[in-house]
Amino acid sequence: MSKMLQEIRDQPEALTQTLDDGVGSAAELRAHFEKRRPRLIVLVARGTSDNAAQFGRYLIEITTRIPVSLAAPSVLTLYGCPVDLHDVVVIGISQSGESTDTNAVLEDSRRRGAVTVGITNDPASAMADVVEFPVLIHAGAERSVAATKTYTCQLLALYLIAYALGGAIELAHLRKIPDWVRGVLTLEEDIEALVERYFFMSRAVTVGRGLNYANALEFGLKLMETCYVVAERFSAADLMHGPIALVERAFPVFVFAPAGVTWPSIAGVLDRLQELKAETLVITDPRNASAREKAARLIEIPESPGTGATPEDLYTPIPYIIPAQLFASHLAALKGLNPDLPRTLQKITRTL
Amino acid sequence: MSKMLQEIRDQPEALTQTLDDGVGSAAELRAHFEKRRPRLIVLVARGTSDNAAQFGRYLIEITTRIPVSLAAPSVLTLYGCPVDLHDVVVIGISQSGESTDTNAVLEDSRRRGAVTVGITNDPASAMADVVEFPVLIHAGAERSVAATKTYTCQLLALYLIAYALGGAIELAHLRKIPDWVRGVLTLEEDIEALVERYFFMSRAVTVGRGLNYANALEFGLKLMETCYVVAERFSAADLMHGPIALVERAFPVFVFAPAGVTWPSIAGVLDRLQELKAETLVITDPRNASAREKAARLIEIPESPGTGATPEDLYTPIPYIIPAQLFASHLAALKGLNPDLPRTLQKITRTL
Repeated sequence: MSKMLQEIRDQPEALTQTLDDGVGSAAELRAHFEKRRPRLIVLVARGTSDNAAQFGRYLIEITTRIPVSLAAPSVLTLYGCPVDLHDVVVIGISQSGESTDTNAVLEDSRRRGAVTVGITNDPASAMADVVEFPVLIHAGAERSVAATKTYTCQLLALYLIAYALGGAIELAHLRKIPDWVRGVLTLEEDIEALVERYFFMSRAVTVGRGLNYANALEFGLKLMETCYVVAERFSAADLMHGPIALVERAFPVFVFAPAGVTWPSIAGVLDRLQELKAETLVITDPRNASAREKAARLIEIPESPGTGATPEDLYTPIPYIIPAQLFASHLAALKGLNPDLPRTLQKITRTL
Repeated sequence: MSKMLQEIRDQPEALTQTLDDGVGSAAELRAHFEKRRPRLIVLVARGTSDNAAQFGRYLIEITTRIPVSLAAPSVLTLYGCPVDLHDVVVIGISQSGESTDTNAVLEDSRRRGAVTVGITNDPASAMADVVEFPVLIHAGAERSVAATKTYTCQLLALYLIAYALGGAIELAHLRKIPDWVRGVLTLEEDIEALVERYFFMSRAVTVGRGLNYANALEFGLKLMETCYVVAERFSAADLMHGPIALVERAFPVFVFAPAGVTWPSIAGVLDRLQELKAETLVITDPRNASAREKAARLIEIPESPGTGATPEDLYTPIPYIIPAQLFASHLAALKGLNPDLPRTLQKITRTL
């Protein structure tokens, strides 16, 4: 068994530990932000962590209404132009805590007076040292180069930060996430059987919207780095602006389709894909029964995450990425590839 | 000849007209912003215009140090959560001025007190009506669904807005852009001959960084919508975080490589791609002679745009996209495809 698969299965425990430890830091941060509400949040990250940042951007804007910007680190690290940081919170995300450009932005931001927060898996990392408020995830050492458990723990940490920023995040719902994930993990055998069909897939499109857009980015990244499938990643809206032209009969399109405000937009895309006879694989849950008739193939996770939440899809992203992780891991295995050590990759990437 | 190709060739005139008319609006805006410096710029756009927005984000942060956020329209249009807009400028970009979600964000922002600016090609559009400050581009009617001249005119409008925001943009350099573009257009025959090699290409990667990252996004979009090539698009830094695993012997990678602060990072990527024996095609100019030895294939534009500017690559993005537009247009023609009317696409896409 690959380390990636083991780490996918480890997620319920990793999430539980991250939550148990994180609630305290979140309360401390919340007290801090109650005194002074930030006017802008800047998120800075690379790779899988940058996909987590995309989630954070939607989550924070939706639950707190504070505008969020995803930093372009090169503006500082290459062009040498630090942006104005008055009343700004800069949040770095890095599994290892050793991402060079992310840390450079955090260090510079802190020196210039921004509140700095760092989400990392390593309490002894440079990031934990550089920031004023480290928010540790407790995923345990991640040995596969393909990040899985650190991604979901980063999403969880972002819920805690949104809570700290005054967002309406219910801890009771967060506490259910590990069990939802356990439920999704029971689908592993079905997914293993399903991937057979995709053995020869060389290109694909992944689609999500709103809070699940990050999952489309992350699923695509996993397909690229572990299965060497060129997976172009879109929000449902952007797909319709041009790239839909790519899609022909039997073209594989992977779609995240929770119930809620994004569903009409996703449903419109699925209708179009059905006309084009695309090979859609839709990830959904029982609450969104209308997804069933629009999908060529379906992964329906057993329980509907966060029923009764506002917005309805608020707690779906962590459970929804699990089938995608299982899919990539099993497809890599089927293709005889080692997802733990993709060709030409290292675990820690240093860029400036 | 396709309308797309004609419109590519029309760009020197379109840019000249946009500049002639735009300098006045820019001066008016500059006077406005001198009285009150905004704390945050929010850019909102879709499709090709969203690629222009990516350019605007780097340009404005680098030249004015005001932080920039690329809006996720669904936060407002689907989730119904308007972000705080105190001292914020919201800039919409849309060729037609009829992009539903972009206009919804602008309308809501204006109602809540933000300064609103709209870059559009149609003075009679809803966008021109909705915003306080329309900045018109004068590209003439764009008849091809594949946007080309409106993209470069949008970039030009963004230079004018950066100038209006107090950025160190030299109008003398902007005035040279139409001639630089004319120079690049002389490469058309060479590019037409070059595309033969790419007849069977079904997947590719495009790479840029900093001010030319938007061009990587735009080149990829053109390859997708006009040639049906799945083109995954990366900043040089993000490519090294995972997706580099895709790249095998003879895998096509298109790279924007101007001289300046992004070159060491791009050079590192090219070195890695050379080891992997990838089929690189590098777009550069005579100022960056060191790009020559790192490229499998090269498009060297005749004149170095903006020599003496700070940063060095500040005026490269408009001339650099021209070879990419010619490439996509001629590859589509070679493949017997109609780039003016990609299958399943319409010129104006309405999304919420």
